[in-house]
Amino acid sequence: MRILVVGGVAAGMSAALRAVRHAPDADVVVFERGDIVSYGACGLPYVLSGDVGDWDDLIARTPAELAAEGVDVRTGHDVTDVDAAAGHVTVRAADGTTTREPFDHLLIATGAAPVVPDWVPQGVAGVYTLTDIPDGRAIDAGLRDARRVAIVGAGYVGLELAEAFRARGLDVVMVQAGRVAGRILDHAQCDLVQAELERQGVDVRTGVEVTGLTHRDGRATGVQTDAGDVRADAVVIAVGVRPRSELAQRAGATLGAAGAVAVDDRQRTSVGGVWAAGDCCETVQRVTGGRVYVPLGLTANRMGRVAGTNMAGGDAAFPGIVGTGILKAFSLGVARTGLTQAQAEDAGLDAKSVDIDGRDHAGYYPDARPIRVRLTGERGSGRLLGAQIVARNHSSALRIDVIAALLHDGSSADALADMDLAYAPPFSGVWDVLLIAAGKLAQAVR
Amino acid sequence: MRILVVGGVAAGMSAALRAVRHAPDADVVVFERGDIVSYGACGLPYVLSGDVGDWDDLIARTPAELAAEGVDVRTGHDVTDVDAAAGHVTVRAADGTTTREPFDHLLIATGAAPVVPDWVPQGVAGVYTLTDIPDGRAIDAGLRDARRVAIVGAGYVGLELAEAFRARGLDVVMVQAGRVAGRILDHAQCDLVQAELERQGVDVRTGVEVTGLTHRDGRATGVQTDAGDVRADAVVIAVGVRPRSELAQRAGATLGAAGAVAVDDRQRTSVGGVWAAGDCCETVQRVTGGRVYVPLGLTANRMGRVAGTNMAGGDAAFPGIVGTGILKAFSLGVARTGLTQAQAEDAGLDAKSVDIDGRDHAGYYPDARPIRVRLTGERGSGRLLGAQIVARNHSSALRIDVIAALLHDGSSADALADMDLAYAPPFSGVWDVLLIAAGKLAQAVR
Repeated sequence: MRILVVGGVAAGMSAALRAVRHAPDADVVVFERGDIVSYGACGLPYVLSGDVGDWDDLIARTPAELAAEGVDVRTGHDVTDVDAAAGHVTVRAADGTTTREPFDHLLIATGAAPVVPDWVPQGVAGVYTLTDIPDGRAIDAGLRDARRVAIVGAGYVGLELAEAFRARGLDVVMVQAGRVAGRILDHAQCDLVQAELERQGVDVRTGVEVTGLTHRDGRATGVQTDAGDVRADAVVIAVGVRPRSELAQRAGATLGAAGAVAVDDRQRTSVGGVWAAGDCCETVQRVTGGRVYVPLGLTANRMGRVAGTNMAGGDAAFPGIVGTGILKAFSLGVARTGLTQAQAEDAGLDAKSVDIDGRDHAGYYPDARPIRVRLTGERGSGRLLGAQIVARNHSSALRIDVIAALLHDGSSADALADMDLAYAPPFSGVWDVLLIAAGKLAQAVR
Repeated sequence: MRILVVGGVAAGMSAALRAVRHAPDADVVVFERGDIVSYGACGLPYVLSGDVGDWDDLIARTPAELAAEGVDVRTGHDVTDVDAAAGHVTVRAADGTTTREPFDHLLIATGAAPVVPDWVPQGVAGVYTLTDIPDGRAIDAGLRDARRVAIVGAGYVGLELAEAFRARGLDVVMVQAGRVAGRILDHAQCDLVQAELERQGVDVRTGVEVTGLTHRDGRATGVQTDAGDVRADAVVIAVGVRPRSELAQRAGATLGAAGAVAVDDRQRTSVGGVWAAGDCCETVQRVTGGRVYVPLGLTANRMGRVAGTNMAGGDAAFPGIVGTGILKAFSLGVARTGLTQAQAEDAGLDAKSVDIDGRDHAGYYPDARPIRVRLTGERGSGRLLGAQIVARNHSSALRIDVIAALLHDGSSADALADMDLAYAPPFSGVWDVLLIAAGKLAQAVR
């Protein structure tokens, strides 16, 4: 049996490792267009900040280590076409030679590409996106002589980069059409994050539409906006990603949510023998049952394992996501899971949210810091729909996992309000903020 | 309607506040034998350590504040007898006067008393237990001139006191018949906690039975053990507590687990009109369905609310506990929920445990520290039975709440292994230790 995997990062590598474990005799080959496989892309901002010493620290396994585990990794190999009926792909190596490679199972794990707005001209230096280590190295080099950097976008990557760039001593201006973290959180929570950015010296411009790039002598000098020009020595675009689904399309696979590859719960595409996993794929949001495109690291790894197991003849199902995300924004921990109030309303649910401003542990114990919890539930059923946490002690935002787990189970606010959670003064209040919020929500959705 | 509450700390005060909220016209009176009500007893070690500046910082509400909320608090009032059939209690005030007080509902929230072993003689100074603020003040005063203190017992209070006394610069010797945290954790986890204590300069003597107190001129000079004498300027006994169920017995109420007051899920005792809540009560361990005595702060508050609601004519049920506990032992966070492997075996369950030694967040991100997770599940069903966490970054032990929540829901290891938990490098690994442990457990219990 021959299993080909296109893409050697999160989903692709998880799939390959699962496949060789389940089918030790299978021929498992990973084609990676770039030079590096098996690295933690979520760590890129932390190399730029200096928290992580070297790009290589992000690498989990080298090709040699993967070979020892039975995975044949071919870097610098671009898979350009698929003939699913014939069961082969076309691969172009770095030296330009093209070969056909047969497969029994093909996994498309081509990831996501940064969205580059139309206003970005070709051939201007000093404009960056960040999705892989070469991108990171380019930003690192490009910022050496910069004093002021503009970040366009205020999502996960934009916020992490704002912190990284301030840690490098740069002036940072963040330009965003909507709110800070506006696609992650409801409005009141966004305001807390924006206040922290401003406290940390970031020049935040929300509600500002970027309309063009200013440049001179082939180098970016800033961005034009509907509120005037913003000068910067470098411009980083972080306005989201789109699925790299072109190869899947060439294979004839159906696309789904946001143009991502449509898959079933086995990670099968609509084409026999062709599978997909990771940031090129849609998935199911368990809270609504709808299909969504939410490319994140753990999700990609989870999907990859499912695809790898199934391609190798095993039996695994992907249960979907609940929409969990977390980020550190300077000293704040920011987390969400499930649906925001706005998302719940968009989904046609009769939703109600409550907010609790508490402390992460007993107020009398040292270093008790503010934590705001928003819990969202469904009126009538009392079902939990989602949670948002903004915490001054960043690690205390990891409480989000309690709600993520309960969303998987379909639990209610009532049930949470009555739970035997851990209490000691250095860890929580007698009534942890989650319990207080759940009690308030249980009343509100009755 | 007249509601009398005996005991004005966690359960009693929660009940009284709930009662006045549900029945604003009711006459709600709290009798407290001591002088202080409504304080966080779990904070006592942190005043002794100096982390909390003053005993008063532990007080949540003063009697005047409670009066404003409609609760009539009478400190210095000892309820000495109950005539349930006649519907009155006998109360002795601090000045020695005795009155009869009629009730429609009586809540017994008399708490727990420290266990004092037989080898402690009467009338010797320098021997302490810690259950309330006067105890704490006595220890504080007694340690002013001490250089070396012996702690007998290595449970929650003993461990918290070891840290507190080291913070005061005292030499600490801890003497324990079993292991360190031996009733909280399985053996391998106990060893981690003991190693931390020793690293912090505590002289730990495990497997040592205390047989007597040494004293001179009416002052303790140490303890006698089956492994020789241990010299100390003060001796703190922290070998657990027993329910104060004497008053409930006088009311004719049936006792249950460990001599605690037997109650149903409404917090009713076996005697009509007489209720009980808090550390004097037994409860249901949801994982086994059995009745247990596990006196802890949140549990007492939860029970109190249920009793208060029901006494006031509302409708609340106490869903029981899952056995969650957490403590800080120097820099370690130590947490548990559900059953240990040993407890599961004692309960006749076919249990299997797995251990994962991981890091609390991405290894390449600064300050990633060791965390050990033990997950216990039931063979065949795959049901989660319990978890134990020992974490070097203490706050990361709060992950225990994810398992506590899943135990409430009766979830499986398989389900947890597949969950969409939060991931970003400052918070967790791509696969959080909980997910890794759950995956390993799911395999092991199949």
